[in-house]
Amino acid sequence: MAKAEIPTKDKLLEISERLKPYIHNTPVMRSVSIDNISGSKLYFKCENFQKTGSFKIRGAMNAVLSLSAAEREKGIITHSSGNFAQAAAYAAGRLSIKAKIVMPQNVVPAKRDAVLGYGAEIIYSGNLPGDREEKCTAEQKISSAAFIHPSNDINVIYGHTSCAVELFNETIPLDAVFVPVGGGGLISGIAFGFAAFSPTTKVIGGEPAGADDAYQSIKAGHIIPQTSPQTVADGLRTSLGDVTFPTISKLVHEIVTVTEEEIISAMRLIWERMKILAEPSSAVALAAFLKNPEEYKNENIGIIISGGNVNLDSLPF
Amino acid sequence: MAKAEIPTKDKLLEISERLKPYIHNTPVMRSVSIDNISGSKLYFKCENFQKTGSFKIRGAMNAVLSLSAAEREKGIITHSSGNFAQAAAYAAGRLSIKAKIVMPQNVVPAKRDAVLGYGAEIIYSGNLPGDREEKCTAEQKISSAAFIHPSNDINVIYGHTSCAVELFNETIPLDAVFVPVGGGGLISGIAFGFAAFSPTTKVIGGEPAGADDAYQSIKAGHIIPQTSPQTVADGLRTSLGDVTFPTISKLVHEIVTVTEEEIISAMRLIWERMKILAEPSSAVALAAFLKNPEEYKNENIGIIISGGNVNLDSLPF
Repeated sequence: MAKAEIPTKDKLLEISERLKPYIHNTPVMRSVSIDNISGSKLYFKCENFQKTGSFKIRGAMNAVLSLSAAEREKGIITHSSGNFAQAAAYAAGRLSIKAKIVMPQNVVPAKRDAVLGYGAEIIYSGNLPGDREEKCTAEQKISSAAFIHPSNDINVIYGHTSCAVELFNETIPLDAVFVPVGGGGLISGIAFGFAAFSPTTKVIGGEPAGADDAYQSIKAGHIIPQTSPQTVADGLRTSLGDVTFPTISKLVHEIVTVTEEEIISAMRLIWERMKILAEPSSAVALAAFLKNPEEYKNENIGIIISGGNVNLDSLPF
Repeated sequence: MAKAEIPTKDKLLEISERLKPYIHNTPVMRSVSIDNISGSKLYFKCENFQKTGSFKIRGAMNAVLSLSAAEREKGIITHSSGNFAQAAAYAAGRLSIKAKIVMPQNVVPAKRDAVLGYGAEIIYSGNLPGDREEKCTAEQKISSAAFIHPSNDINVIYGHTSCAVELFNETIPLDAVFVPVGGGGLISGIAFGFAAFSPTTKVIGGEPAGADDAYQSIKAGHIIPQTSPQTVADGLRTSLGDVTFPTISKLVHEIVTVTEEEIISAMRLIWERMKILAEPSSAVALAAFLKNPEEYKNENIGIIISGGNVNLDSLPF
């Protein structure tokens, strides 16, 4: 199919339906005090309560379910230093498919243990994103396992649409939805979902100013890769790809960049007022909304809390 | 009424009903990974999501609702360095009753601001619990405001029974419920609730070894006040009183004491696995259960997460 073609409602419902046995329909939370601060009515979609601790399982599971029997036989391979590694390992485990995950040598031990706990094999690479990709390409050639990209894969993106479908079903019509942007897989899925079910809802990306490749790429009209990201939002250091870029170009209303201080302050607000753990990448959506709340005065706004996998030993406060 | 007399189901339902407009029916959360670690099925009653961030609003609201019109006219007075202060201020504010809260001079600024934000007046005292009580007694004589004790007050305790009623209504029959013990108000309310609705459910207290006055008092058969509590669980440094002691003596199955390391480790487990903020006092219930999980193998266990008001600037990890 053509890139950035909006799936039909029927297709999206079918995807949501087949994911149901494997994922949580995560809660939509409200916060009176953050509503008061912002002047809007905020609906937080809490993917920190998702299986494996982030939204990534939606895409990983859908990608694995989309494989043919012959492909499943050969297993999957992917690269990730974080949430997608756990999600892919879990998804493959649920279908008893072999999974190889290329992770950097300096991986956080808790993440490594989670991946191993789900029964996947870890292949270690150098610590730069490029090292992981190179190692993954080489390993894929040897094993012929199906490569699943953490964000720039249409079936991964289709899986993420289920998050939009749930949010749409559980709230009144939203004026806008704020979504963190890293590789762009989540926001592409959310944008597809709202384009199909509620095209008047603006989908807005939040991006760290220190990793603003999406903002720059949209402005330039072509992909400008992220070269040296500097941000506490470790899930958002990656670049857009040839699937996510055209989707975002076509369907996303705006990308708002935020400072590190704004990210940490939004994260703290979520923790203190909502009593939930949101990882720094997650807080970027709220930070982007809070950049200019008067623009959305009294409106109904969705905020995607994308995950809650924080390292408690290195908190930014 | 006689002390420690179990209220009827009708009375408890009436209390729950009248509290409904003012409090949240907090969620009961499950955690597959903590279930796996423990070998039991755990039901976490999440009072960290309660209004004002802890269970205390249940008791404070019920006590305020129990006042006569003449008493409401004169307002209320209480003393607290923490969660009860916010709860009493909020409860009084909801009924447009004046509230004076005696707080120590070294109160955490966020707690002070919350109390003032709810419209209460703060009267500052010295920093020791005794200082607060003394100041409160003197001020009460001047103003004739109705004194509401943070824990040792039958109407406060009756308010806390609503937490047990909700938990009972939303779970399968529980074999045991673990509850943190400070002044004993929460566990007295939970014990009343289960004694009325599910008398086979064991109610078990968790107490820091560094503030084990309840454990010592029950052992001795009389109240042994807490003199120099040493624990990170700042909500559990107070002593039992003449209402809570007989209730706990009669209805609580056992008090389990836990070390500081066990408290912090349980707190970390809740944060990392459940993605929610539980304050150290809250984690004491899970810590007490984890002291001896084989005793409850495959059983259905309630765990009361009593609050989520943590100071992010002084986390124990």
